[in-house]
This record gives sequence, structure tokens and C-alpha cells, in this order.
Amino acid sequence: MYIRPFMGCAYYPEDWDEAEIAYDIRMMKEAGITCARIGEFAWRKMEPVRGMYDFGWLHHVVDELHAAGIAVIMGTPTATPPIWLSRAYPDVLHQFSNGHANHGGRRHCCSNNPHYLEASDAIVHAMGREFGKDPAIIGWQLDNEIYTGGSGCVCKYCMENFQTLLTEKYGTVEELNRQWNLNLFSQAYDSFEDIPPAVDAWHNPHIQLDWKLAHHKADTAFMHRQAAILRQYTDAPIGTDMMPLNGLDYEEMTEPLDIVQFNHYNVPGNLHEVTFWFDFLRTLKDRPFWNTETATTWNGSTAITQALKPEGYCRVNSWLPVALGGEANMYWLWRQHWAGHELVHGSVLSPEGRPCHVFGEIQQTADEFGKAADFINGTKVTSPVALHFTSRSWNLFEQQHVVGGLEYAPEVIGMHKALLRCGICPDVIGAKHGLDGYKLLISPLLMTLEDSDLAEKIADWVKNGGVWVAGPLTDVRNGIGAHFTDRAMGMLEDLLGIRLDYSVPTDGSVLKAAWSDGEELTCRRWVECYSGAAEALASVTAGHSALNGETIIGKIPCGKGMVILCGTLPSEKDLDRLYRLAMAEADVVPYKTTGLLVAAKRAGDAEGLVLCEVGCGKATIELDEPMRDLLTGTEYAAGVMEVEPYGVHVLIKA
Amino acid sequence: MYIRPFMGCAYYPEDWDEAEIAYDIRMMKEAGITCARIGEFAWRKMEPVRGMYDFGWLHHVVDELHAAGIAVIMGTPTATPPIWLSRAYPDVLHQFSNGHANHGGRRHCCSNNPHYLEASDAIVHAMGREFGKDPAIIGWQLDNEIYTGGSGCVCKYCMENFQTLLTEKYGTVEELNRQWNLNLFSQAYDSFEDIPPAVDAWHNPHIQLDWKLAHHKADTAFMHRQAAILRQYTDAPIGTDMMPLNGLDYEEMTEPLDIVQFNHYNVPGNLHEVTFWFDFLRTLKDRPFWNTETATTWNGSTAITQALKPEGYCRVNSWLPVALGGEANMYWLWRQHWAGHELVHGSVLSPEGRPCHVFGEIQQTADEFGKAADFINGTKVTSPVALHFTSRSWNLFEQQHVVGGLEYAPEVIGMHKALLRCGICPDVIGAKHGLDGYKLLISPLLMTLEDSDLAEKIADWVKNGGVWVAGPLTDVRNGIGAHFTDRAMGMLEDLLGIRLDYSVPTDGSVLKAAWSDGEELTCRRWVECYSGAAEALASVTAGHSALNGETIIGKIPCGKGMVILCGTLPSEKDLDRLYRLAMAEADVVPYKTTGLLVAAKRAGDAEGLVLCEVGCGKATIELDEPMRDLLTGTEYAAGVMEVEPYGVHVLIKA
Amino acid sequence: MYIRPFMGCAYYPEDWDEAEIAYDIRMMKEAGITCARIGEFAWRKMEPVRGMYDFGWLHHVVDELHAAGIAVIMGTPTATPPIWLSRAYPDVLHQFSNGHANHGGRRHCCSNNPHYLEASDAIVHAMGREFGKDPAIIGWQLDNEIYTGGSGCVCKYCMENFQTLLTEKYGTVEELNRQWNLNLFSQAYDSFEDIPPAVDAWHNPHIQLDWKLAHHKADTAFMHRQAAILRQYTDAPIGTDMMPLNGLDYEEMTEPLDIVQFNHYNVPGNLHEVTFWFDFLRTLKDRPFWNTETATTWNGSTAITQALKPEGYCRVNSWLPVALGGEANMYWLWRQHWAGHELVHGSVLSPEGRPCHVFGEIQQTADEFGKAADFINGTKVTSPVALHFTSRSWNLFEQQHVVGGLEYAPEVIGMHKALLRCGICPDVIGAKHGLDGYKLLISPLLMTLEDSDLAEKIADWVKNGGVWVAGPLTDVRNGIGAHFTDRAMGMLEDLLGIRLDYSVPTDGSVLKAAWSDGEELTCRRWVECYSGAAEALASVTAGHSALNGETIIGKIPCGKGMVILCGTLPSEKDLDRLYRLAMAEADVVPYKTTGLLVAAKRAGDAEGLVLCEVGCGKATIELDEPMRDLLTGTEYAAGVMEVEPYGVHVLIKA
Repeated sequence: MYIRPFMGCAYYPEDWDEAEIAYDIRMMKEAGITCARIGEFAWRKMEPVRGMYDFGWLHHVVDELHAAGIAVIMGTPTATPPIWLSRAYPDVLHQFSNGHANHGGRRHCCSNNPHYLEASDAIVHAMGREFGKDPAIIGWQLDNEIYTGGSGCVCKYCMENFQTLLTEKYGTVEELNRQWNLNLFSQAYDSFEDIPPAVDAWHNPHIQLDWKLAHHKADTAFMHRQAAILRQYTDAPIGTDMMPLNGLDYEEMTEPLDIVQFNHYNVPGNLHEVTFWFDFLRTLKDRPFWNTETATTWNGSTAITQALKPEGYCRVNSWLPVALGGEANMYWLWRQHWAGHELVHGSVLSPEGRPCHVFGEIQQTADEFGKAADFINGTKVTSPVALHFTSRSWNLFEQQHVVGGLEYAPEVIGMHKALLRCGICPDVIGAKHGLDGYKLLISPLLMTLEDSDLAEKIADWVKNGGVWVAGPLTDVRNGIGAHFTDRAMGMLEDLLGIRLDYSVPTDGSVLKAAWSDGEELTCRRWVECYSGAAEALASVTAGHSALNGETIIGKIPCGKGMVILCGTLPSEKDLDRLYRLAMAEADVVPYKTTGLLVAAKRAGDAEGLVLCEVGCGKATIELDEPMRDLLTGTEYAAGVMEVEPYGVHVLIKA
Repeated sequence: MYIRPFMGCAYYPEDWDEAEIAYDIRMMKEAGITCARIGEFAWRKMEPVRGMYDFGWLHHVVDELHAAGIAVIMGTPTATPPIWLSRAYPDVLHQFSNGHANHGGRRHCCSNNPHYLEASDAIVHAMGREFGKDPAIIGWQLDNEIYTGGSGCVCKYCMENFQTLLTEKYGTVEELNRQWNLNLFSQAYDSFEDIPPAVDAWHNPHIQLDWKLAHHKADTAFMHRQAAILRQYTDAPIGTDMMPLNGLDYEEMTEPLDIVQFNHYNVPGNLHEVTFWFDFLRTLKDRPFWNTETATTWNGSTAITQALKPEGYCRVNSWLPVALGGEANMYWLWRQHWAGHELVHGSVLSPEGRPCHVFGEIQQTADEFGKAADFINGTKVTSPVALHFTSRSWNLFEQQHVVGGLEYAPEVIGMHKALLRCGICPDVIGAKHGLDGYKLLISPLLMTLEDSDLAEKIADWVKNGGVWVAGPLTDVRNGIGAHFTDRAMGMLEDLLGIRLDYSVPTDGSVLKAAWSDGEELTCRRWVECYSGAAEALASVTAGHSALNGETIIGKIPCGKGMVILCGTLPSEKDLDRLYRLAMAEADVVPYKTTGLLVAAKRAGDAEGLVLCEVGCGKATIELDEPMRDLLTGTEYAAGVMEVEPYGVHVLIKA
Repeated sequence: MYIRPFMGCAYYPEDWDEAEIAYDIRMMKEAGITCARIGEFAWRKMEPVRGMYDFGWLHHVVDELHAAGIAVIMGTPTATPPIWLSRAYPDVLHQFSNGHANHGGRRHCCSNNPHYLEASDAIVHAMGREFGKDPAIIGWQLDNEIYTGGSGCVCKYCMENFQTLLTEKYGTVEELNRQWNLNLFSQAYDSFEDIPPAVDAWHNPHIQLDWKLAHHKADTAFMHRQAAILRQYTDAPIGTDMMPLNGLDYEEMTEPLDIVQFNHYNVPGNLHEVTFWFDFLRTLKDRPFWNTETATTWNGSTAITQALKPEGYCRVNSWLPVALGGEANMYWLWRQHWAGHELVHGSVLSPEGRPCHVFGEIQQTADEFGKAADFINGTKVTSPVALHFTSRSWNLFEQQHVVGGLEYAPEVIGMHKALLRCGICPDVIGAKHGLDGYKLLISPLLMTLEDSDLAEKIADWVKNGGVWVAGPLTDVRNGIGAHFTDRAMGMLEDLLGIRLDYSVPTDGSVLKAAWSDGEELTCRRWVECYSGAAEALASVTAGHSALNGETIIGKIPCGKGMVILCGTLPSEKDLDRLYRLAMAEADVVPYKTTGLLVAAKRAGDAEGLVLCEVGCGKATIELDEPMRDLLTGTEYAAGVMEVEPYGVHVLIKA
């Protein structure tokens, strides 16, 4: 019934009286809004006293939106348990290791606490009963941005959860002692009960990893529990809006859910990063994702932390999720809060109800969604290149940076940006994702292959003809982040007949390297030196007599395929060279672009591509044949087409 | 009996034996010291065991000082309760939210604790009885630099005080929930007892504001309680020495006290800032204030944090309070502590009793105070310009910076500095201060007008002919810092018939603006765009098509007066342009100065002005008629007079 | 039986199975390793259950090493008490002032806790019984890097220890109140029990000093207690491996021990600093010290924090302790940990057993130790110059920086570096060290002379002909860091007939100074101005009329000797001038070197010198006579000899 892709917004009717709500809905229509997210923090207004529900006001809002032709995404309000719960059961509160346990703000309750879970179950059941069959509701959002950052709750339920996870994973405490090498520092435990929370002491990275995983697992289980309840009442798709943080495994979280939901707040300086995330999101489910939150203008809680963005930013930022495989772009928030929290955050309307300065951009983009709807809904993004981005690597590097300053996500995003520069929108994939159909696979910083069936899956795919760019720091640890004692790499030394001789940190001052044609190779932070590659693409030229001449980037045939082993973090220029070389080996033909231009190939009922300029600069693309822009009707001849800063074009064959 | 203005110092006779005290008093005479502050931290020496008093040693010191012709300001020692109180009642200690409650240093007791208040009452009564009628004592100082910084004590008495304040302010918890918009995040409270201290969680700015105000109110009440006790025994003026922090409302605090006392430790780089504070202090009471503390040379606790200052700094720094409306300049401290705390802080004498290197400057300044005494005592500083600086704005911006990096006091001080550059020493006034007699009123960052009778008072004054420079961020919130929902400004849109269309943050990169004559206007951090002004003085020239052409600075007639609405924080150059323009509109004639020269006009028994160069550079002033310098006897012809770096001149008509 | 100097390493056989241990020992032989440190963290493997010992595995390792001709240093494992102790007696844990007390990592127990001491005694007794007479064991290491950083444990035993120390030191609480000047702020205590831990409040530097000293004393007593137990079983030398931190007094700690052990992790940027420490270590005992830990390549726990070092660094870093008076260089660690903590730290072998890239440098250096063994073992380093570096100064400056940014050790090390530049390896000496035989003594920042018999000892030595360069900030406080009240310096004003007129902080902007010939003197941070010196070598030229002309550096005869009083921290250039001048006065003839070259004169059975270039640059030395290099056999003619970056030469008369 509702037209996709959606142009949406978060709306908090609990803060406004009826007259204002009527005004807001009129203005939504004027802005081009077709979908509203509501309910996510309104627990107390739905259940002002424990067990006594009041959904009348919410029905009213849903009905009004529905009447106005605006679809509704309904949120469960479990991120904001009311004071009556904290008063009745003080132990529901997240317990910090310093003893604090405070009611206030959001997410102050522990996902492992039975009283909290009981209250959460009750409100979710009640909402399911009330709204499960409501025709206005096109989907459900569970909780909000659930994630355990910091050091995590240390309450007794969390300790039980932790010890249960350890017992399941290691079986006996002796085996845990062995795997964690706890003879070191005399740290071996006599029982699982001995094991403390991994906070406030010099703990090893293995306990820190499992401590974090235990919390992530609890959060995941909590979401799945809510989904199972709602399923009893509704057929609408269920998801939970997640942040650009992959410690809480997107694959695990979304597997039993129906739809991927995502919140982001990028800015001009890092707009390309969100394209990395969208390239990831679309690979998680065989269904378009929803970009549930982004800012119209700027972020701010009690202070705005950004400045005015250039004209066109709002439009391209709104287009990107739709271009890259989503079917909704939703702003946070519709109308600025008039009091309380986040009262200077960018919005569509000001607190007094006046349009923000990008109101026109929003209207235009909503209009464009309509013009391109058939094409978008009838096609999917397709890519011959996959880039690995795994939750395990995220968590391992969080506990072990290996070399100072090295961060997992920024490095992988840097490699994704290099692919963008080369004219490719890769599929960004997790450890569980299949490799069939890809010609080229890139796996940087994939610290362990003991994750899902990665080792076997990749080896098979390479032997069957795939081209794999691996490294640096790929396959160098076991599944819990420990070294191997009988080999330097899990499978690669054996598979390829090579030997990792040395791994050395670099700051660029002592170690020098070059490509085989003599051009300098700039190595950042880390260099793996090995021997035995069929062809050395780049080697150490200076640094230490033991290292000079060692291979850094090597090409090794493997079955019908090939591995390009890259032992360093190259500069941007060197990355481009490496990827162009790898694409040539893999018969991947990228778009010929200049600038920072997203060129998302889409196929299905039609063929075409969506262009989004994300660097606020000039960009070009070389068209192979004449194309027509669905948004403007403009026809472009074959040859070089110029794209303006923050330009958006939806091109199909003319 | 004693000659004013005073040249004074803080003295700690409790640390020295009798022979040294005799030596010290001899040296005070040599230095030119005419007033000593004593007693402020000596509780234990006065009351070594609870209820057993020993004032003999203190009488001796007072008598010796009196005999030497040195006036005494007596301090109550309540900032330093002895260990016997903490031992007897451990709950007297300030309780930090992390559970700490430590005896040590200063101000370790809670102003709301009844045991502390009881002990404080007792020592104040005892001191009043002993010294209330002592002819040597020209005034009383209560406690020392009382101020609740940080997050404040969370003891049960503080919670009761907080909840009492909330009950008085909001009446019912429902009304509090409504005003704080606590439907948001399901935060509404069921009773006042539910409301936690505003610490250690993501609290909204309204609870944070009231939490801070509750502590400030307790501190204020504690001072007023001491004053009420002392009044039973003495007729000497009573005050409390405050710091350059206006969260603890100077107007409220000093209203029932007799005299304003002020401690500051400025340095060459920010010397002009203290002139802002002096311009404020003199407007608080119809009585000259006392500058109770400043450094002779440098600050330091266990390490000196400053370097040698240029010659003349000590003199001009000592003259400034007297030039700008005070009648005392007092050094902290007379003789460097020989052990314990703050043992490298600058002083008049070293621990071994030797004069510091600025001893000569001190002698000279003391001598000059004598020469200028009749003129200073017979005149007052007068100004046609007022600059708003309110405690409410301070507290609101402390909780809500609105835009990242924006701080209230530095911005207002920057505007005061612009006025200095333009040749004006304005009166800096609080919210309660009247406007009669001013020609020009400047109110930047006056976030709310719901404070005292500001809205009505200003509107009346403007309508009666005043020229008001308002904004940015003036009148944009209600009294607790919330937005309005039916208008963007409290009274200004209606009063002036204008409309605030957009408010946007800026870093200077995207948004551009210009004065109506085309000269560039540099906007810092924040821009308010509006329409409807009679005359646009400056507008947006580039940034976004929705903003281009909008007014940033506008001139709007209002009754017999005028409002100049300034929607941004201009650069120094632009501020000077704005203020010169506003002075012209208001018929304010500033002194014609160059450089950073304080030119304080004084009138009364005589007419004249005091000049203090505060930028350590060259400065000039154009004299309208011949003047004579009371300090040197030099006569200056009409025309340009040069003032040397850190120069001080007291000029009367020749 | 074993050949010295030793090339050694730390080894953790508890982490490896028998086959790997056999492999490791074979590889040690190949690397040239002649000594292994074992046992230090293996408490739980020795005593898996309280009171049940298992030393079989350790005997096996010791025997295998012995059989391979590798000497053993045995460590007591008391830094890593097992979980069974923490479970049985939770109060053994270090109690942080925030209430935390966590088992985990290392050193989590309190050195004052009786249950911990009891358990420690037991394991030390058991090890003594087992290994006391083992011929393989050439020495013992107690615990590991014991040191109380941070604010220290606040448990009841620590409080008792603190109050005991205070009682011993001050006798009565009244005397403590007096010495700490606790009339100030009414802080006087009524009993020793009143005195809190010096944490979490604004405490004065005297209590902070004694609080730190109490912890250092407890750590020292704990080590001495272990040594006394081991002495019952062994004749091998006993020591404890200490870090470059002199708060825990090296003189006090090592006095009843047999041998000095030292761990350091310097890098190219600060390699010269370790020569300062070696110059200090050799003066502590009449026996060569052991450099028990240094990195082969880089440091790292979960991340490597350094980059690849230039070739030759490992060799010169390994040679330095031997060149400067030690008889062992030992790497931490032999084989990288395969899991657990510190698993990326540089080592000799990788976790999988492969040689690191500096394996060849290690082999070469081990070979060179053999070639030079007779010369090294038959000679000692000798120097005519002593530089003071006292634990008391370290602790005083830790509590009182006097001027912002001033740190004791970096300044003294900067002066040591100046001496290196001038061709001198001084003896760095503590307060208890004798002065006989030295021609020149340098005592910067020797804040108090009330330490050991310093005042009398120095005065006697000067009167008997010594040349003493004193200051700045020398002799300006009493033994607890308080000022004098009757003089500015403890003994110097009286001894020399001078007067310290002013002490002022400087940032170089206002105060200017010059040598007597007019050359500018650059004064950093601090300037003492005095009068009365026989000859002013440098004076204030500008800054303030009270200071101009005052002496900053003065020369004052004293008996047969002379004091050069230096009232500032000079620039590098000025330090060189000062020291060359002082050496001329003292008839000290340095080597004529350029660059940053350690030239360690050695005398005994033979005469010669060891050269180590430590700046990674070119250096030269002027040889007085032909010399032969023991490492290469090369003969060098008299005259200028060039030394390559990181070059090492052992020269004897040709």
C-alpha cells in the first residue's frame, strides 16, 4: 500500500499535544515524508503504572498518520524503563565496576536482569496485542541502538552469563587455563567461579574478548527474545536499529530478524564511510535495509558539535542508502525537542514548528524517490568484488591493536575508499557470507580464519579460480587471538608454500620498500616479510640486513586461482596500484571514474546505475553508452560525464 | 580613623611565633601596608577542642596591628573545620558521588549538614563576642571563596535541600515532569523523592541546572546565616570574598551583605579581564568594593605556574580596583608559607622574611594611594553604557553550550574588551540592576529574559529612548533553558515584529556574511537569520540558498528607542564597528583612545579620570582640556597624551 | 665456572612443553646465550595448591640448562600470588582508594599484608631448600620490579605502617603538627590515628612525601625479608630487578643485598639516558651489576609501541651495561609469549620458534663478550667526576615541582648528557656515597642537604680542595621539603658568605642574562639571584630593576676548594661552557670527543677504554697514543679516530 523507497523521520508524539500533532502531520505531508518511526522511548506513557496500559493516545497518532498516508514503524520502548521499575527492583540497573548504578537517561538497565526482562516481555506482549495487526504499521523496531560499550555491567546476572559462556566454550577450567596460557603470571583459575569481570586490572586479551562477547551475546539474546514475542502477533518485518559498530555481530544479530535497520550520523569529512556501511548492510539479508536514522543538518545534545554543511549534502546523504541497497531514508528527528535531552539536535522542524533551512532539499529528495521508485524497486546492486569485514576481527583488534594506533574499522574503510576511487562499490561481507559469484576477494586484517568456516571456504574458492588479496595481519592468530606455536600463520604457509620470516612495526623512518619496478612502496605501521612467493611484487629495500630483499607483497598461484599476499598497510597511492593490479588479474572491470564518486551498478527489471558524489568535489565517469537521468530526464552521450559536487544521478540506458 | 583606599595583605599569624609577628608588622609598615586580613583559616587555633576557645593570641595580633596603625579585616574560619568535627560527625564531610568523603585541605564539609552548621554558628558567635566591638576591625570576611564547582555533595541533607527547592519551584511532580518534558525517554518521576542527584548519568540540562542552583542556594544561605549572627555583635561591614565565578549569584549573595569582596589572580595575558569584573563589582552595592586577594608576583601551590612578569605589572594590577570603584587592594599573601600548602605562592616577604623583588613597586603604589586618596574617596566611576552579565545566563550556558566551544563569560568579556578598545568602561550589571540613566545597553547571550523583571524592564527602557544591542542567543529560551513551542523568542519577535527564521552553527567555512556596505562580516560559531527588521545592517551572502539574504544584524526602532539585534558573535574588528555604530545612535561619547587603555571617568567632589594601561603596550588618549596628574604633578596639555606600558595616571582638570 | 660477562635472557619454561624446552635450549646455544633468568612468575606451578609444592619440572629445566652450560638466575615468584591466596584471604589484595581490590595481572597484593607475607615466606623458604645449593644457579632475583607508583594501597596494614613510620619520625603528633605547619588551614591532628592516607584530597607535600616513603619502606622491607630467608640456604648473590625509578631508594634497597639488578627499555631517542643509569648502578656496590632486562627489538603488551630500530642498535644497547661496569646483559624475553599477556613484545625467538631479525647482532655481541672478557673482568670504570642523584631529591620533587614542568630526573640526565658531550663518564652517586678521590662534584637540584651526612661531607670535601658545582635549587629546603625561616639556604649562605636575594620563575620572555664576557646565558624555568660571590660568572641583564645586575652563576673560594654556584637551568650550550670551565678549575682532563660518544675509561689489570656511540651519528675521539681494538684486532694510530653510528670499540694500548 505504501510507496517505497520511504522518506521518513522519527517522531515523538508523547511530547506534544493534539493540536501540535495535527500540525506536524500536515507539515510531514508538505515535506514529502511517507513514513514515521514512533514509540521507541515512550514506555511510561504506554504503561504509566506497572501493568496498567494506556495505548489510546498512540492509536490516535497511528490512525492519524495512516489517514494521512504515512506509514508507521513502531518501536518497542525497552531502552527507557520507567522509574517504577528501578524503584521496585533496584538491581535492574546497569552496575558499573566502580559501584555506581544509576537511573537516568537511556539504557540504564542490564540486559541480563530477570526483572527487567520480565517487564520488557510484558510491554512487548502488550504492544503486539494492540498493534500487531494494525495496517498502518509496516515494521517494528526493537529497542534502540543496543550496544555494550565501555567495560560492561558487572552484576551477578552478568557474572553468571559470563561464566556460562566460558563453560560452554571451554568445557573445563583446565582447558580455559591452557588456552589462555594462564601458567603465565601464575594466573590459572581453580574454578569458573574464580574468574573475575575483565575490568579494573591488567587482564589478558582473551578474558577481555570473552567478557565483551558475553555482553554482546546477552544483548543479542534480548533482541531475539523480543522478536519471538512480537512474532506471535504480527507479520510485519522486525528489526533493531544498530549503529556503525560491529562488535555486536551484525550477522548473528540479524539472522533471525527480518530486516536490517541502521542509524548513522556522518558528516562531510567522512561521508564516504557510510557508503562502506551500506555496502555491508545490503549483504546481510536478501531484503532492502532501512536507514532508520540520519541527521537533516547537524548533531547536538546540549551543544551542536558541527557546523553548517554545504548545500546538497542533505540530498546526497539521503540518497545514499537508497542508491546502495536500502529502501528507506529516515531523519532523526522530525521536530526538535522543546525541552529535556538533545534539544539542539538538527531536525526537519524547529521546536516552534518552523521548517529548517534544508526543508527544500528534503522535499526535492522525496520527490526524486518517487521518480526513481520503479527503477530502485525493480533492481539490486551487484558487485564482482567482496571485502571482508568481520565482527571477530573487530573484537580481536579491540583487545589487541598489535601495533600502536592500528584500528580495524578505519583501515578497512580506507581500503573500501580505495575501491571507490577505483570505480568499484564492493560487497562488504561478514565471516558467514558465501563467496560464490565473486571474482575478487579482499581480506585485510582478518586476524583469524578460525571463525565460521572461513578457512575452508576461502581455500576452496581460491582453488576454484578466485583471486584473493590477503593481509596484512590476516590468518596470524587463532580464534581467541593467540599465536600459533608451530607455524606463523593458520593455513597460509602450508597452502601457499611460503614462510612468514619476520613481522616488524614501522614508522617509515628506517624501513624502506619498493615495488618490483623500483617505484617506492610506502608501508604504514606494519610490515610482514616473507619468502617463498612465486613472484615478489614488492620487497624491502632498506632497514636491516636481515630484512633487505624480503618479500612484502607477493603473488602466489593456488589451484585455478591466486593469492596476492600483502604484508603491509600501503599508502593510498599504493593501495590503488595494488587493487588495479588485482582487478586486472580477476577480470573485474570497474567504472572509469575520477574523484570520489559512488557508482552503484543496479540490475534486475532494468539496468542502470546510481551516481552519488561524496567528496564535495568534481568527479567524472566515462559512460560506455548513452544514458538518461531518471530524476531530470537529461540524456548523457557516451563518453565522459561530469558530476557536480554532491551530485546525484539515476541513469538508465537511454 | 584608617585612611582609604587600603593597601592590604592576607596574614596568617597562627603560623608564626611572636618575634616573627613583631618583625612582620614592622615590615608591613615599611611596605606601606595599611590593612591586614587575618583569621580566615585559624579555627583550630581559636577552638583547639570543641567548645574551648583561645582568642588570646589573636587579640594580641589585632592589638599589635592596631597599635601600628594597620586596620584589620577579620575572617570567619569556617572553610577549615578541625579534625575534631570530622571525627565526631563523619557525615559532615562533603560526600562525592563516588562514595569518597575525605577530611583534608579546605572546604571538606557540606554546607547543608546540621552538625557542621552548628559548629560554624558556635565559632561565629564566639568571634562576634570577642571581636565585634574591636576598634581595629574595619570589616568582616565570611568563610573563603565558597563555591560549589564539580558535581556537588550528594549527602542526604543535600538531597533534602534539592527536593525542597524542586518542591518550592514546581509545586507538584507532575508540573516538574511537564516543564522538564519528561515524557521524553519515559523519564517522568512519580514523586520528588524519585529524583536523583544530577550526577553520573545522562541527565537533562534542567535537572542539572536545578541541582547546581540548589548547591549555590545552600552556600548562599550559609553565608547569610553567618552574617546574621555577626550582626548581633558588630557594626562593621560584612562580606565574603568571592571568585570570578558568577554561578553563585553575586546579586543574591551580596544583597543582604554590606560589602563586596573579590579575589582574583590575573596575569599579563588576561589583565583586561579583571577590569570586566571590577566594572561588575562596583554596580552591586552603593559602596566601594574590596579587592581582597591578588598576587604580588605569581601563583603557586607546590609549583609556580607562571613566569616573571614585566616591571610595572604589580603596580597597575594594584591600582585597577581602586581606579574602577574599589577602596582596597590586598595581596595574597604577606609572607610565603614556610611549610604546608601553597609554599611557593608569590608574597610580599619570603619565608625567611626578605622582601620580594616587587617590594619597591608595592611601596610606590601605597604612596600613590595616599596622594590620590581625596580624589578617589570623593568621586565615583560613572558610565553611560551598561553590559549585561547575569548569573542565570552563566548557569544556563554551563549546562547548555548550545554550540560546541561556546562559553558565556569569555564571550561577554570579549565584548567588554571591545568597549575598552572603544574608550568606554561600561557598568557591567546583573539581572536585577536598574537601567535608569544608561543610554546604551548591551545584552549578549542573555539566553532568557524570564529572570527577575528583565523583559518588562528592558522593553520599558527601550520604549523610553534606550538603545539596546541584543543577541546573539538573547531571549531564545525560557527560564529553565527550554525552547518556546509557539515562538522562537520570548518577547523580541512580538515586540519588534521580526521573525527568527533560522539559527545555524558556523565554522566560517560555508557561511559568509557582509555588512550592508559590502565589507565582510566574520561570524563566529553561531548565526541567527531573521527577517522583518527595518534596516539590515549585515546579511548572509553565501552558505545555502535558504539562508542567503537573511538579516544577521538588524536595526529596529521601538518606541522612542531602538534595538540593534545582532545574531552572531562577530570578530574583534566587527565588534568595534558594531559598538561605535551603537554609541553613535545612543549619543554616547567615548574617550578617544588607542591601545588597551582603561580610562575610568570619575565624578563627584571633583572631576577627572584614572588611566591604566593593561596591554603592556603603547596607548594614547586625546585630552579635551589640560589635565594634571595627581601622582606626579605633571601637567598635560589638551591633545594626544601618550601612556607608557602598564602606566597609571590620575588626572584632574589642571 | 661460567664465563662472564653474561649474555642472557628471561625464560618462562612454565609456558612450554618439554619438547619445546629442549628446542629452546638448543637455540639459546646457537644464539650465544650463556645465562637464563627463570622462575620469576611461576608461583602457581611451583605451589599449585597451598603448601603442596611441585619443583620437579623446574629442576628438570635447571638441569637441562646446566647441562648445556647455561647459567641460571632463579627468581622468587612473589609478584604473582595465585588465586588460592586471594580466595582464602581477600584482604591480601592491594586496596585502591576508590574501594577497588582486584585479583589479576601482577603485584595485586599488598606488601604489608601478613597473610601475603606468610605465603611469600613459605614459597621463598621452599625454593631456598630446593635450589639453594644448586651449582647451576649463579644468583637470585627477588620478586620483580617492585615499586609503588600511583597513590598506593590504603588497607589497614598500610595505615598501620604509615602511622608507625610517622611515630618513629616525629615522636609526637604535636611535633608532626609543628613540622608540617598544620596550624595552616586548621589541619593539626589530635593523634596519629587521625592522619588519613594522602589520597583524594588537597594534601600538603609533607604528608604526601611520608605516605610515599612509607610505601617505599614497606617494599624495601619485603625484599630484605626475602633475602634474609634465602641467605639461610644459599651463598649465591641475591638482588632484585629494579626499574629506572629512584623513589624507592637504590642505596637503601641494595645495601643489605649482594648485587644490583636493573631493567630498562630505552629506545634510539633516549639511549643516552641508560648510560646515566649504568653510571649510577656501578657506584652502588663494589661488584658489577646485572642488566637483567632490555628489549631485543621493541616493547609491546597487546600493541607494539615502537618502530623498527636501526641496525647496530641491539648490539650497542647490549654492550653498554658491560662497558659501564656491569657483567651481564639479559634480554626480555627469550621467546615471545604465545598467549596471555605481552604477546607482541620483542624477543629472541618468535612464538613459533623462529629467530628474530636481530638474531645475528645477538650472536655477534655474545661472541664479542668472549673476546673482551679478560679485559672487562680485569678492569673497572674510573672517573674523577661525580654527579649527585639522590632518592630524597626524587621524592621531594615528585611532591613539589617548585616550578611548573620541572622534573628532577630529566634535568639531572640532561646534565649527565652534557658531561657525555664533554668527554666524561661521571660516577652518578647517591647521598650516602663517599666523595674521596673525586676532583669535581656536581649537585643540581639537590633540594635538601638534610639527607645522610651530605652537608658536612660536602663541606669537608670542598674545604679539602674539591670543586663543587651546586644548584640550582640546591640546599633550599629542609629534609621534609619545608622552607627555612631564618635563612634562604641550609648551609650555603653561611658557608660562602653569600645571600640568596630572589628566586624567580622564568619563561625566557622577560628575564635576560649574560656571562661576564657578554655572551648571552639562556636560563630555563628558574633563576636564583644572589649577591656576595667573589666572582660573578653570569648575571641578570634585564627583567626588573630589583634583579638587574644580580649574580646567577658565581665562583666562591672555600678553604682549599671552590664552589661554583649555578642559580639556573642553563641551555645545552651554556651547560657545556659551565662544565668545561669547572673541569679546568678542577684539573679534570676529559677525553676529546665529538658527537654523542660514551668513552668509558677502564683501569685495573690493564688500561683501556670502551667506546659506544649512542646518538646514531658520527663521532670522533682523539687518541693520545696508538690503541688496538680487542673486538676486531684493528690498530688505531694516535690522533683522531672516527666512530661509526652505534659503533662499539674496546681499545687497549697497542
